[in-house]
Amino acid sequence: MAKLKRILGIDPGSRKTGFGVVESGRYSAKYLVSGVIRVEKFSGAQRLKNIFESICQIIDQYQPDVMAVEKVFVYKNPKSAITLGQARGVILCAAAIKNVEIMEYTPTQIKSTIVGKGHANKDQVQYMVQNLLKLTDKPQEDAADALACALCHDRYMSLGIDAELISKGTKF
Amino acid sequence: MAKLKRILGIDPGSRKTGFGVVESGRYSAKYLVSGVIRVEKFSGAQRLKNIFESICQIIDQYQPDVMAVEKVFVYKNPKSAITLGQARGVILCAAAIKNVEIMEYTPTQIKSTIVGKGHANKDQVQYMVQNLLKLTDKPQEDAADALACALCHDRYMSLGIDAELISKGTKF
Repeated sequence: MAKLKRILGIDPGSRKTGFGVVESGRYSAKYLVSGVIRVEKFSGAQRLKNIFESICQIIDQYQPDVMAVEKVFVYKNPKSAITLGQARGVILCAAAIKNVEIMEYTPTQIKSTIVGKGHANKDQVQYMVQNLLKLTDKPQEDAADALACALCHDRYMSLGIDAELISKGTKF
Repeated sequence: MAKLKRILGIDPGSRKTGFGVVESGRYSAKYLVSGVIRVEKFSGAQRLKNIFESICQIIDQYQPDVMAVEKVFVYKNPKSAITLGQARGVILCAAAIKNVEIMEYTPTQIKSTIVGKGHANKDQVQYMVQNLLKLTDKPQEDAADALACALCHDRYMSLGIDAELISKGTKF
């Protein structure tokens, strides 16, 4: 039997970064771990250092084969785009340093895949993630988004859909 | 005699990141090294990894006391802001990991300090950097911007001006 693939889902943020690890199963994905990297108490570059080191630690501990990251296009203003970009940068860099493949999915792709609606709200995402992974408790918002991203990648892979192709416009 | 401070100036970019190290002197700053980290040949997160590792290497080799980074507010579009943010993120993270203090200066602060005009062009910056550091050749554009940033920090420090205070609106 082929080794089960482990997927690390990430919902990047400059203050709170959600993460979640699932294992691709024959019929459904299995939950391994999830949580939120909170860096509000740090300032400036210490936040980035903390996010970077946390991601490295999660990768070392759970040895994912792939990282699925939420891709975002729209921002309130350039300053917030730069701030989010900085957090994303250290997350992608950590994966590259640890030789973990990276896939990106837009929020619409993730919500369409998990909830069935591209504009699903946070509650619906949490509900579906809890059900799909058979969790006893509702996962925290950012952790749910990260798990949804991991589950989205799992679904794309199990259907043999090329994520890159889809992100270029092919209908799912 | 107090140890001379070494300043690493950085002009961040997703494709080309300029860097330059100067040593604060009693009367003027002394040139140590400068160059451009070119990552065009890499794709995606490999670019970020390469920028991160290059900055770590420069810090290890030249042991700067402070990193002076160009701060930018205006971008063509959110996508380019995110891309630049990602590069900035790994640069700031590298400095934080190596315990190097970080100062930020806007392009207007840098140009006002080095050229005397907040809207000086690239040529004028290169000319002034070459003259101030007594270089035989004109430094490459991105390296000149990085050296200008380092020289700006040096000037602020020698005048005893609190950079943070200035960046909040006090006139220089």
